[in-house]
Amino acid sequence: MNNVLAQLPEDTSMEHFSDIIKSENVRIERIVSYGQSSPEHGWYNQEEHEWVMVLSGYGIIEFESGEVMRLESGDFLNIQAGRKHRVVTTSADEATIWLAVFYRQKDY
Amino acid sequence: MNNVLAQLPEDTSMEHFSDIIKSENVRIERIVSYGQSSPEHGWYNQEEHEWVMVLSGYGIIEFESGEVMRLESGDFLNIQAGRKHRVVTTSADEATIWLAVFYRQKDY
Repeated sequence: MNNVLAQLPEDTSMEHFSDIIKSENVRIERIVSYGQSSPEHGWYNQEEHEWVMVLSGYGIIEFESGEVMRLESGDFLNIQAGRKHRVVTTSADEATIWLAVFYRQKDY
Repeated sequence: MNNVLAQLPEDTSMEHFSDIIKSENVRIERIVSYGQSSPEHGWYNQEEHEWVMVLSGYGIIEFESGEVMRLESGDFLNIQAGRKHRVVTTSADEATIWLAVFYRQKDY
């Protein structure tokens, strides 16, 4: 893969996660969603910070605090490590393509 | 800024660099180009690896080795630290928006 918008997976029954860069301190991932909410149960609770952007479609993210954010094309968000969150839904009409950069602080 | 495609700078006489995330091991930057080549003289020769993607417009990157690559929307490229490169040109008709992730290896 050398274009994040191309070669979309055909199976729309699940989300698809692809590592683009995997280094010691940073991981860049493409996520393709087809209307899914995730995780199926509970919250994402990550050891790394996550900077995430929507490239196409849209996604709605909920935080444990109750805050809800809708991200559309070009919108981005920085999620601190340990901040519990989940994807409530994504576009049902088209693929939602996310770009996520997971990173650690030096003293982490 | 919370949308990489919005709030484009008005001054088209120069390139515009904006840090989105600046952490010890990773820096995420938006670059908006209006037809510029860069750097003005010589090559970029960076201490960090750079993963770069074009979000709109296009850019042509040349490497010291002679290799030339044209990046359009969604195309990305990983440029190893120390690999000399430059931007030959970008779209003259519209803003070229780049997303760049600069990162270091742990043992760097």
